[in-house]
Amino acid sequence: MQRIKETIDQIKPLDEDAMMLAKERLDFLTKPKESLGMLEDLAQKVVGITGNIVPKIKDKAIVTMAGDHGVVEEGVSTYPQEVTPQMVYNFIRGGAGINVLARHIGARVVVVDMGVAVDLEGHQDLINKKVGYGTKNIARGAAMSYEDAIKSIEAGIEVFEEELKRVDIIGIGDMGIGNTTPSSAIVAAITGEKAEKVTGKGTGIDDIVFENKVKVVKRALEVNKPDPFDAIDVLAKVGGFEIGGLAGVVLASARHRTPVVIDGFISSAGALIASELAPLARQYMIASHLSAEIGHKIILERMGLRPLFDLRMRLGEGTGAALGMSIVEAGVKILTEMATYADAGVSEAKL
Amino acid sequence: MQRIKETIDQIKPLDEDAMMLAKERLDFLTKPKESLGMLEDLAQKVVGITGNIVPKIKDKAIVTMAGDHGVVEEGVSTYPQEVTPQMVYNFIRGGAGINVLARHIGARVVVVDMGVAVDLEGHQDLINKKVGYGTKNIARGAAMSYEDAIKSIEAGIEVFEEELKRVDIIGIGDMGIGNTTPSSAIVAAITGEKAEKVTGKGTGIDDIVFENKVKVVKRALEVNKPDPFDAIDVLAKVGGFEIGGLAGVVLASARHRTPVVIDGFISSAGALIASELAPLARQYMIASHLSAEIGHKIILERMGLRPLFDLRMRLGEGTGAALGMSIVEAGVKILTEMATYADAGVSEAKL
Repeated sequence: MQRIKETIDQIKPLDEDAMMLAKERLDFLTKPKESLGMLEDLAQKVVGITGNIVPKIKDKAIVTMAGDHGVVEEGVSTYPQEVTPQMVYNFIRGGAGINVLARHIGARVVVVDMGVAVDLEGHQDLINKKVGYGTKNIARGAAMSYEDAIKSIEAGIEVFEEELKRVDIIGIGDMGIGNTTPSSAIVAAITGEKAEKVTGKGTGIDDIVFENKVKVVKRALEVNKPDPFDAIDVLAKVGGFEIGGLAGVVLASARHRTPVVIDGFISSAGALIASELAPLARQYMIASHLSAEIGHKIILERMGLRPLFDLRMRLGEGTGAALGMSIVEAGVKILTEMATYADAGVSEAKL
Repeated sequence: MQRIKETIDQIKPLDEDAMMLAKERLDFLTKPKESLGMLEDLAQKVVGITGNIVPKIKDKAIVTMAGDHGVVEEGVSTYPQEVTPQMVYNFIRGGAGINVLARHIGARVVVVDMGVAVDLEGHQDLINKKVGYGTKNIARGAAMSYEDAIKSIEAGIEVFEEELKRVDIIGIGDMGIGNTTPSSAIVAAITGEKAEKVTGKGTGIDDIVFENKVKVVKRALEVNKPDPFDAIDVLAKVGGFEIGGLAGVVLASARHRTPVVIDGFISSAGALIASELAPLARQYMIASHLSAEIGHKIILERMGLRPLFDLRMRLGEGTGAALGMSIVEAGVKILTEMATYADAGVSEAKL
């Protein structure tokens, strides 16, 4: 717990003086004031996060964390659990959606085993932070012990500090068959929303499986009674190892003043845990897309984040975050590369 | 008119067989079916447009067309007319918003003088297709002759055929002080919407200037009585040279089976002219963003296009198109670079 506490204690608010200087520069660029909308907001935010009024986005990484979920016993997914390790190998070989989109935007993918149910073959591109061999079934009891919840968050902080500390921007993503179910339970537990409002169709289940899934989320809440005022208790009782790991990455990003781009529903559940532990961490988050998963909107509203786009994506892995990172980079380049009216000899608007 | 007619006659529907093959492949990739949402739709669309089931997007260009507008006499913009040529020089020097975003996505910018009010210094990166020295004031009469409207569309076709024929994807953008006013008049003329519904604040005018602008749009329609069933008449009476040029680029893109990514309000007014002349051309268009300019939504709905994102941008130049092109490219790479279930040894969903 000490490492989490230290990390949270060192999260500071954004650098507002730097943001004001960035805003001034944005207003002198050869375009009508604020005409690049959210690109300008993103540039200012990165300045506030980094404290650098000429931020550079060169080294980009997407951290994709994998874990398994005992709740798959309840038949909440159409995919078998073996897909989690198979997809981890797919990430390492570069064939998954996140690999394609990461290459497209010039980012590397950092793959972490937070709690896959089987041992994975060692590989130089796979980080082993396994906290356990999958969580227990949340419909029957706690997903993990309180200690393991702490360990999963601390593992996320370690991943950041060991692998990502020099990165200019981070995206976060997830892989774990069944992990929309604990994510829905986390959101319901923390926000008090009903299970029906925060449970979606995940990878694409039919109505019968969906009805069962809603019941499973309800049961997980009834059986475990997570304490909404203790995010670690929520994570322990109805969460997942990769979700805790992502919460840790978000906390460390905020502490080390690095913009962190959130992907979809599961990543946002991790970010929500981080934001409950450290409300200031929200200032370091950038929401990329609005997922097709219905509970996502509720998390983003809770954290006061507006997504950049909605392309009806619901894959996870960090795929939405990858596209979002490219838009953030575009905003930063507007600030740092565009000519001013004076540079370009362009007349300004009449007041 | 012959060149326009020939171009339109050769526009064919999308290749639906190729699109079905693309859909089959998309469903075999290592992701839940349709979980990449509009990225998958975009990939299919590019396949249908090009007829190639393994399309490549390598050579990308944004064509930014500039023209002046006599209607600035009516005080519809806060910027002086001299800004149009100043911004053209800014484009050529690489300091404008479109240059930054084009570099970000790896596209080149093709700058065309369609009708700037002054002679521009020759430059290897500037294409001269000047149809006139700015349009006439549409509040008092026609913007241009019917012949010049044809000439402007044909110039756009020429630009495509001379400069862009080998390009894999095209974005279109505009520059012209005052050009939201003719764009609003075009939309009102073609859709029958009231001036109030299609007139926005352009580069950022105040309420008094805005009220005047609405009156100017109304007057332009009353004075000129454009024929809603003759898009060339609409262009001649209340349009602009760069708007006609962009319509020509869109027609040629459709004829030569090249995806064309539309930017904001003015580009969409050009695309609307093209779509009225050749409804099939709509199938070749991809809407990038929803502009903050209120009439934009009405054009996109009229053409049946759904924008990819809304970042409250309203700069024009092709800036939204640039970001959109990168998303289209991402969709194509998903189709062509992702591993299938069989390739990756990943188990499929149970049915």
